[in-house]
Amino acid sequence: MRYRPLDCSIARAMELLGERWTVLVLREAFNGVRRFDDIQQYTGAPRQVLSARLATLVEHEVLRRVPYQDPGQRQRYEYRLTQKGLDLYPVLVGLLAWGDKYLADESGPSVILTHKDCGAPIHAGILCADGHEVPSARDVRPITG
Amino acid sequence: MRYRPLDCSIARAMELLGERWTVLVLREAFNGVRRFDDIQQYTGAPRQVLSARLATLVEHEVLRRVPYQDPGQRQRYEYRLTQKGLDLYPVLVGLLAWGDKYLADESGPSVILTHKDCGAPIHAGILCADGHEVPSARDVRPITG
Repeated sequence: MRYRPLDCSIARAMELLGERWTVLVLREAFNGVRRFDDIQQYTGAPRQVLSARLATLVEHEVLRRVPYQDPGQRQRYEYRLTQKGLDLYPVLVGLLAWGDKYLADESGPSVILTHKDCGAPIHAGILCADGHEVPSARDVRPITG
Repeated sequence: MRYRPLDCSIARAMELLGERWTVLVLREAFNGVRRFDDIQQYTGAPRQVLSARLATLVEHEVLRRVPYQDPGQRQRYEYRLTQKGLDLYPVLVGLLAWGDKYLADESGPSVILTHKDCGAPIHAGILCADGHEVPSARDVRPITG
């Protein structure tokens, strides 16, 4: 993961995701929470900050704005994950799993994610294109592109 | 991933990892870069900031300090990943893969990570405890813990 340190994909991804609240907004998006007031309530982000973060995520095409209108109300927008946003799921699950393992309080994890088909709990892992699970960083060889 | 929004494991993980430079320090740790001057060079982090980030990562037991001494020099410390740190690998690979897919410039990714055993490129994915690959967030059911 080296070779062009300041310009690597991790640095670029963190420019977007490293902003406070942004990952929590994405957490809610994966929970199906799409409307401003709900996102605000579930994340606890200040409204103005949340507006700015949502605008940035739309600008980067991680979320898209879709109009909706409740009866008797003006038109509003909800925020849905694009494919680019959906592709962040392994990162979110990785953060959740790591936080659950090392940072959870005594009451344990607040939610367990399971595979719909078989009911077994899920985790973030490393896979190779040939379908092998890659147990650790020691099983990985970096090749300069 | 909901239910205790401000107190969830993702929020806690991001309190640590959301700090600018921290993820780049971890990137270098996974690259085997362990010494202050080398980490400084490869990340480009200002020295004082880097000191503070390393201290935080040691305090949170993501890195540990190990003394070393070059001939004729005073004793110094290098920084190595603990198991807690090593367990962040799927998050780092997920960020790298996502950045490569969506944020890389025309010259393409700067490094390709491959499975040592078979040479195939690796990616971050979701797995269940029964060994199935879980293709997307739609295949996941959250259960309140």
